[in-house]
Amino acid sequence: MNADATPSAVLIALDWGTSSLRAYRMGADGVVLDTRHLPWGIMRLPGPPTDGPMPTTAAAGFELAFDQACGDWLRAQPGLPVIACGMVGSAQGWAQAPYLELPADPRDIGSRLATVDTHRGATLHIIPGLLQRQGLANVMRGEETQVVGIMGSAAVEGMAGGRAAAEDEADAADDLLVGLPGTHCKWVRVRGGRIVEFDTFMTGEVYAALRGHTILGRTMEDPAAPDDAAFQRGLEVAGSALGRGGVLSTIFSTRAMGLTGQLSAQAQPDYLSGLLIGHEVGALRALLDARGMPSRIVLCGDEDLCRRYASALPHFGLAAPTLAGQAAERGLWRLAVSAGLVRRP
Amino acid sequence: MNADATPSAVLIALDWGTSSLRAYRMGADGVVLDTRHLPWGIMRLPGPPTDGPMPTTAAAGFELAFDQACGDWLRAQPGLPVIACGMVGSAQGWAQAPYLELPADPRDIGSRLATVDTHRGATLHIIPGLLQRQGLANVMRGEETQVVGIMGSAAVEGMAGGRAAAEDEADAADDLLVGLPGTHCKWVRVRGGRIVEFDTFMTGEVYAALRGHTILGRTMEDPAAPDDAAFQRGLEVAGSALGRGGVLSTIFSTRAMGLTGQLSAQAQPDYLSGLLIGHEVGALRALLDARGMPSRIVLCGDEDLCRRYASALPHFGLAAPTLAGQAAERGLWRLAVSAGLVRRP
Repeated sequence: MNADATPSAVLIALDWGTSSLRAYRMGADGVVLDTRHLPWGIMRLPGPPTDGPMPTTAAAGFELAFDQACGDWLRAQPGLPVIACGMVGSAQGWAQAPYLELPADPRDIGSRLATVDTHRGATLHIIPGLLQRQGLANVMRGEETQVVGIMGSAAVEGMAGGRAAAEDEADAADDLLVGLPGTHCKWVRVRGGRIVEFDTFMTGEVYAALRGHTILGRTMEDPAAPDDAAFQRGLEVAGSALGRGGVLSTIFSTRAMGLTGQLSAQAQPDYLSGLLIGHEVGALRALLDARGMPSRIVLCGDEDLCRRYASALPHFGLAAPTLAGQAAERGLWRLAVSAGLVRRP
Repeated sequence: MNADATPSAVLIALDWGTSSLRAYRMGADGVVLDTRHLPWGIMRLPGPPTDGPMPTTAAAGFELAFDQACGDWLRAQPGLPVIACGMVGSAQGWAQAPYLELPADPRDIGSRLATVDTHRGATLHIIPGLLQRQGLANVMRGEETQVVGIMGSAAVEGMAGGRAAAEDEADAADDLLVGLPGTHCKWVRVRGGRIVEFDTFMTGEVYAALRGHTILGRTMEDPAAPDDAAFQRGLEVAGSALGRGGVLSTIFSTRAMGLTGQLSAQAQPDYLSGLLIGHEVGALRALLDARGMPSRIVLCGDEDLCRRYASALPHFGLAAPTLAGQAAERGLWRLAVSAGLVRRP
């Protein structure tokens, strides 16, 4: 691409979700040269209020956000390829990138990008989400890119990258479980370099709804620092015979133990967090017992949340996880390579 | 008490909860002569906005609601005893009626009423809630009165009622599970005429929070009539191997199945209801497997909700329940008798 003396970019990559937009300006080999974090998630776009039924109005919001995210980068280097993952490709997004069905090979994902011709002339390539039809229907959008970022690169780039056959074989033999804690926690199984199965737990969003919109929030106060003992207490309840009544039942103990003086107002938020994450990981354990254990577990997400899940997994007899960072930007890069938008030098 | 020719009352009974207030004017033998339903729950009392820190302001709200509920009844028959159950006896209520610990005999409950001297001279007697310390702490306020209303009267009124010894023995041998579906569904075990154990499931409130304050509500539309097939589908998922991931996981299928065209927008509310009630009753089944089955199950509450639970119980291998009505007013009457506020003629 461009070959000036200053570090020049070869790709713009966007992680564009419901509530925020992260933009990366990437150089050769996927090195991140610049990062921007904007509040323009697809549910809160900038610009004049989009209260009309005109689709052009909604598109204008996307155009505005896009321009703020990377307009100057594109003006400096016209023709840079742009790739995006996340809810921007949903029915409520800018353009729909149809779901790809499991099992999914990263090379397939990279070959199925949707495109939008933006007002300023750039073409936005949108990564499809994944759809699981076996069992209960399940969907993801954005997380597939994080998972690709975590997977061994051989699975993505195939032989093109010139990696040793031994590395390819190691990837092919790997049986990996990727945990992506957050609003909707995804647990994604990767076998032989393909995404084969996943589960969604609405733990983060349920926590927020319970805290903000049920009686449980009324007696809670924010602790000065995360209360690990209270979190642990919640985990233990969820994992013991006391947790047999399930999460709809145990959560009420947050209030009841407050009323009886057994749990302070400041301990209640982390106790509830421990209950929810405990029930989630307990159920995950039951699912893995039926499906077989992975050879390793990797967590990726908010640091404090990952710390909580990392302490929950061994509590339920699961392997201690390793932590992965920069999964979205690595996945965006790898899928751009796989799609032929950029070439490894 | 009064002995005019017109049917005269012997008791005023109030079922005073968080969101509403029901008032009953009762004649001899607990016959309900008049009923009023007011929106003055303890969290939304009438009168000038209670935005000051003065406790007298809050009390004024209770006085106003009380006067609207039964002021005229008391003016017509001064000196009528008044009994109340529910959140009016909580820390956020008019006066705190301390919790009574399990196991609880209705005669004990009737002997532990708290009192408030109202502005107009009447004394309000408030029924205590119940507290369970064994296992996870649990509390109820108001439901104990409904349970007493459902229990055999022998347990409440003892020998005073002049009932046959055989009836007393039948009550003493009874092993009853009372289900009270609603915002917080309580499952209350009654053995030998005493309340011995209970569980709380926040199913109703969680349903409302999920529908009103998570992504699940976004794709939902109200059905023209309850969609029993969708409800049944939710029950079946919760009770099958597909439900093994637990409620935090299965609820996401409401959205995912909507996105894949497997579940219409109008079917989603009842499908979610089936999932939640299914997970609740499945957990109840697990608890009963550990504790032993009751000899019978009684449901009391909103008609449509009871219908849903009645179809869920057999789905999880539990006995078909019988339905009970007027539980609160019967319980209020029986506890007033037990407390000596009224006498059976």
